[in-house]
Amino acid sequence: MSDADTASPPLTAAALATRAAIVATAERLFRTMGYQKTTVADIARELKMSPANIYRFFPSKSAINEAICGGILVEFDAAVWAIARGPEAPAERIRAVFRLLQEQTIALFFHERRMHDMVAAALEEHWPVIDQHVHTIDAAFGHIVADGQAQGVFAPLDAEMTGRLLHLTCVMFTHPTLVEQCQDTKDLPLMAHAMAEFCLRALRPDAPAA
Amino acid sequence: MSDADTASPPLTAAALATRAAIVATAERLFRTMGYQKTTVADIARELKMSPANIYRFFPSKSAINEAICGGILVEFDAAVWAIARGPEAPAERIRAVFRLLQEQTIALFFHERRMHDMVAAALEEHWPVIDQHVHTIDAAFGHIVADGQAQGVFAPLDAEMTGRLLHLTCVMFTHPTLVEQCQDTKDLPLMAHAMAEFCLRALRPDAPAA
Repeated sequence: MSDADTASPPLTAAALATRAAIVATAERLFRTMGYQKTTVADIARELKMSPANIYRFFPSKSAINEAICGGILVEFDAAVWAIARGPEAPAERIRAVFRLLQEQTIALFFHERRMHDMVAAALEEHWPVIDQHVHTIDAAFGHIVADGQAQGVFAPLDAEMTGRLLHLTCVMFTHPTLVEQCQDTKDLPLMAHAMAEFCLRALRPDAPAA
Repeated sequence: MSDADTASPPLTAAALATRAAIVATAERLFRTMGYQKTTVADIARELKMSPANIYRFFPSKSAINEAICGGILVEFDAAVWAIARGPEAPAERIRAVFRLLQEQTIALFFHERRMHDMVAAALEEHWPVIDQHVHTIDAAFGHIVADGQAQGVFAPLDAEMTGRLLHLTCVMFTHPTLVEQCQDTKDLPLMAHAMAEFCLRALRPDAPAA
């Protein structure tokens, strides 16, 4: 659910169901017809309701898209956090998150080209769902760093800041615009792997003073 | 000069002078009127020549823009290489390049907003001048890494790959699209500094085996 919802009064069960139906129908149309070509009237027709009824729930097509992207990103975030909280050694978790971020981005943006346009629109419009996603991944990395520090395998750096930095080193294989501009996406798995190993070197504890 | 030139026969001194005049005039118009609003006819009028004469040198407005951006990036690259080849300790050179990349990007893209649009167009169109710039900066970082290895202060990693990785960690404060989407550009100097220190930790030599 998007940040914007927190300002509205709570919805009844029936209203929530309608809202979910609008989101599900819009997502199907965006994926098949494309985001730009789908109108609110198209969505209303599919749902056998009036456009005015849709506008009771969402002020614009862009707001529907925000709800859809928010849902996708929440799933994405949950997969990253499942790794971050997992039983593997902290270094393995860092490697796994790098791999997941890289693979999911390619899957999302290349195999589902229309989805790419939706998320790219989200980035250009600075939606709260995007900020929330970025902070959630920063925090997942920070969590692994803190765990590694507790186990004595990572250096005692600022865990929160280090989480942000780790996430920033992934930008070239997670940001839709950069992935789109990348001319050799088959290099991305190798680069993600190399970057993870490079970052793990930075996390090594300092040698004890002689 | 752009890659495209290498396919053409060498230009006479007079032709080179005309070409330079076209580039200089176009750059002035792009900076004052904006890239989108300036036409080839505007450039021709300023130079008191026919548009046909301009097309003898450049097939399109976009090709003129490529030559301008190429010139700016070549200057930018030279400044980075001056640091890379400089007398400072290798770690200091890495810090200085991170600082320069971050400061130059902000200067270019914010204080010269119209320039930003020109470079953003270049990125979207995958111009050879952009690739060349990226490789030149990768190589400058690789050069510093190799120097640090020769001095025994950096770990014996693959210098070329490490140069690419160092440059990739800078993407968030050097890529015009990301800088544009960044909501807190006043954080960028701090992030660039923190990222440089993080990367320098990765470059530390391994502790000798006990």
